[in-house]
Amino acid sequence: MSANRLIYLPLGGAGEIGMNCYVYGYGPEGRERLIVVDLGVTFPDMETTPGVDLIMADISWLEERQDRIEAIFITHAHEDHIGALGHLWPRLKAPVYARRFTGTIGRLKFEEHGLPADQITIVGARPEVVEAGPFEVQFVPVSHSIPESSALVIDTPAGRIVHSGDFKLDRSPVVGEPWADETFRAIAAERPVKALMCDSTNVFSLHPGRSEATLGDPLKALIAGARGMVVATTFASNVARLKTLAEAAAAADRSICLLGRAMRRMVTAAQESGVLTSFPAVVSPEEAAEIPRQNLMLIVTGSQGERRAASAQLARGKYLGLEMKEGDLFLFSSKTIPGNERGVLRIVNSFSEMGVDVVDDAGGLYHVSGHANRPDLEQVHTLLWPEMLVPMHGEHRHLREHARVASAKGITADVITNGMMVDLTRGLQVAEYIDTGRTYLDGSVLIGARDGVVRDRIRMALNGHVLTTVILDEQDAPLGEAWVELMGLPERGRTGRALSETMEEELSDYLGRAGAKVLRDDDKLDEAIRRLVRQVAMEEIGKKPEVTVVVSRLMEG
Amino acid sequence: MSANRLIYLPLGGAGEIGMNCYVYGYGPEGRERLIVVDLGVTFPDMETTPGVDLIMADISWLEERQDRIEAIFITHAHEDHIGALGHLWPRLKAPVYARRFTGTIGRLKFEEHGLPADQITIVGARPEVVEAGPFEVQFVPVSHSIPESSALVIDTPAGRIVHSGDFKLDRSPVVGEPWADETFRAIAAERPVKALMCDSTNVFSLHPGRSEATLGDPLKALIAGARGMVVATTFASNVARLKTLAEAAAAADRSICLLGRAMRRMVTAAQESGVLTSFPAVVSPEEAAEIPRQNLMLIVTGSQGERRAASAQLARGKYLGLEMKEGDLFLFSSKTIPGNERGVLRIVNSFSEMGVDVVDDAGGLYHVSGHANRPDLEQVHTLLWPEMLVPMHGEHRHLREHARVASAKGITADVITNGMMVDLTRGLQVAEYIDTGRTYLDGSVLIGARDGVVRDRIRMALNGHVLTTVILDEQDAPLGEAWVELMGLPERGRTGRALSETMEEELSDYLGRAGAKVLRDDDKLDEAIRRLVRQVAMEEIGKKPEVTVVVSRLMEG
Repeated sequence: MSANRLIYLPLGGAGEIGMNCYVYGYGPEGRERLIVVDLGVTFPDMETTPGVDLIMADISWLEERQDRIEAIFITHAHEDHIGALGHLWPRLKAPVYARRFTGTIGRLKFEEHGLPADQITIVGARPEVVEAGPFEVQFVPVSHSIPESSALVIDTPAGRIVHSGDFKLDRSPVVGEPWADETFRAIAAERPVKALMCDSTNVFSLHPGRSEATLGDPLKALIAGARGMVVATTFASNVARLKTLAEAAAAADRSICLLGRAMRRMVTAAQESGVLTSFPAVVSPEEAAEIPRQNLMLIVTGSQGERRAASAQLARGKYLGLEMKEGDLFLFSSKTIPGNERGVLRIVNSFSEMGVDVVDDAGGLYHVSGHANRPDLEQVHTLLWPEMLVPMHGEHRHLREHARVASAKGITADVITNGMMVDLTRGLQVAEYIDTGRTYLDGSVLIGARDGVVRDRIRMALNGHVLTTVILDEQDAPLGEAWVELMGLPERGRTGRALSETMEEELSDYLGRAGAKVLRDDDKLDEAIRRLVRQVAMEEIGKKPEVTVVVSRLMEG
Repeated sequence: MSANRLIYLPLGGAGEIGMNCYVYGYGPEGRERLIVVDLGVTFPDMETTPGVDLIMADISWLEERQDRIEAIFITHAHEDHIGALGHLWPRLKAPVYARRFTGTIGRLKFEEHGLPADQITIVGARPEVVEAGPFEVQFVPVSHSIPESSALVIDTPAGRIVHSGDFKLDRSPVVGEPWADETFRAIAAERPVKALMCDSTNVFSLHPGRSEATLGDPLKALIAGARGMVVATTFASNVARLKTLAEAAAAADRSICLLGRAMRRMVTAAQESGVLTSFPAVVSPEEAAEIPRQNLMLIVTGSQGERRAASAQLARGKYLGLEMKEGDLFLFSSKTIPGNERGVLRIVNSFSEMGVDVVDDAGGLYHVSGHANRPDLEQVHTLLWPEMLVPMHGEHRHLREHARVASAKGITADVITNGMMVDLTRGLQVAEYIDTGRTYLDGSVLIGARDGVVRDRIRMALNGHVLTTVILDEQDAPLGEAWVELMGLPERGRTGRALSETMEEELSDYLGRAGAKVLRDDDKLDEAIRRLVRQVAMEEIGKKPEVTVVVSRLMEG
């Protein structure tokens, strides 16, 4: 006999914030039918992933079981939940389900990648049910920092699962549906919740979360008091914030101009999908340039200091005919994500040089988070009182803390990270460890995080790169002198001589005295040259560069 | 006639936190006698300075006027004030003055660099006066996060200057001298202060600073309540903190072990120079490994997540026979400097995986800053009431805010950044702009920030590096096939073929059809090959790599 299993397998998001990708399966072991929840990305950094464009979960495990995938569900349109859809869908080719706004964004991505947009089905909120093999899935509206974020109720023969998605308990979210206790109470009353997979992002925030609606008055006061141009930045996808900002601008008799492609695209998508019904009129950058500064507010992309976004462009000077000046106000209606501090401060200092006043969230007035804080999480635990709680969407420290909070009140909880497959019919014991990792979008190519490509880039960045070419004739005798090219290395060493010349001389000396056994053997010669180059570098400049050796052998023709 | 000028010229530290280096001069224009205050470093990061070891001010301007330098004064032994001394002193060769602890650290650096330690003169605090040409300089004890930090009173024929150094208003600093209002009141009463050059680091902190002494009780309570091993990290140079931590450990019957070379060196230097008179006994790592965990506390380096420091080593596993385990406590008695968040969080998550509880300063109990907060700065303004205030030691935003705070109360103040020379006899107008920059220690070599070396490293890290070699015979005809090596690039492009092979084929095709005019001309050939390689890369992998072309020409011999 083969009992049916109900498996949960995070491939991304459980051990990091970003790159969400969770798998559920039901059926006999090894033949479970599968659904995927979210296909997100995370963003590269110079320290660990130089040159990489996007980072996503390694879905090899899913790809090998492609015939068993019933559906892909996208909880909401944040890039860390939907960003990999266009890149990875061709490897999974399962029908995609999302609500209208999310689906609209998803279809835009499909179009960009030349994929069949009709593979994305727009579905309504609970009580509408999507049947996907043994799964019955409902989208439950929750509040978050993007419209139409949804939790999923996933019914299986082995029990009901609630997958929280990203959420906060906002009863007055400005745009989109409010959080409703009664909905979740009803869900648990209908059928006991076997497992709650729950957002952990803000588990270290100890005060109850604040509503988006609390920002209106402080923003109105701030903007009404400004004398020059006002420029505000926030995440483009935070449509509610865009609306709050725009309304505060309108209240201060300011025209509104949206700068940044993502910003305009989000507002359009929100309007087209009906989640944004009223938004003040906007003017184009060309029109904005003609409006007196004190009657203008720009809402721009780049709250995280991204080099190419509108904020950074304005910090460097004129952008689309618009320019910050002394007496203007720049507002970060946002929080800096850890790791982005330097980029953000670079912008702040540039504005400081221009005489622009910068206001951020230090006073707690101009930004609220989109995630449930610890007391809010505890409310949800209590509302649903699941048999098991599995923290997700968090670094290890978040997951561990969240599990501890739940355990403390008597709910079974444990840390399940990427690659740990649990069979929920047997509790939270790990049934299997899956080898997971990361996939990089690098230019137009997907590469594995362990392919060594990025490792080599980091080495070149740290150590520089020496290229050595040697030509040997038909008798394995050196022909001409060795040639050395340096890249990313000081031109001169401590002796004051050109480093490349010193290397060339040492190499020629060496080749002159090297025995036939070495000269004949590509590997030995390569190794000897490499060692010599590194030794000279160490003596001359105190570091060991990466070395590429090209030995060309002239053949008897 | 040539009137005497009193010039102030920051070469580092005015526009950044770190790399402090300030010049004062007095005399006829172009013949001023000079003194230098501080020779500090700042630290590289992967994003802007990969592979660089240390960053210091470009002192070319000073070097060209070496014969006019009377002295170098070091205010305190933090690396951002003293770190470049060993590297740059050989270019300046002026006598160095410092107080005992600072001088002890300075002499260690001189010894490491094989420099004459007797060039560092240890001087006492005010009223002792160092005469240096037209300058009379006194070291005035201030409290900070390192022993013996000093402000300088710099008397010149054109007036008295107070150079604050780094300071806080700590009346109970645990180690070292307390801040004393009366000292500064007396300084201003003795002779009016023409200009106050003042630390700006904490100008955005709006509450009054707290004393080091406030940490004792919370730390004692925390450590007494711990059940496993306790490991605490802080800056090695924060000798007062080391003492507070060690005393809290001793009170909880724990043996103390110092891990990290910098940590042991600082304690030794503090003891030898007499600033640290009582410190609990410490055990070696070997001894510590034999002590029951609940009776042990490690004090370790690496509060900023530095990869090679003790904290990071412990986060990776066993270090010197010691290992963190479930139930242990790790304490960051420190603040994360912006930009270091990712490194610190990496450690926190590793400890989380080990089941170690991590406590940081989120609750404000286990760390205090070493810099004066805004209300404290205002107290100092009032005490000294200078004719002019020049904010220093800060990014542009700090300097601007500090100038605004001072201006608001009626003190003349303005932002003077690196390279702006002001003649203080004429107010705060800029007399001259000096071309300044940064010098990198790279391995054992000093290179200029604009030499292009680091730019090339960054390009290789972002774009990868392609090496192409072509051999031409005596008639400029290609000999054999072109050869391509890739470094930091995907092996295969979108066609699935090996990228290097595709490039080699295209190159061989090209060389076959290239005209003699191109084949003969190194520059043209180089350019054509480079363009072709980048074009193939763009088609195959969607990015344009760095390309190094080596054309070898066989000569008629």
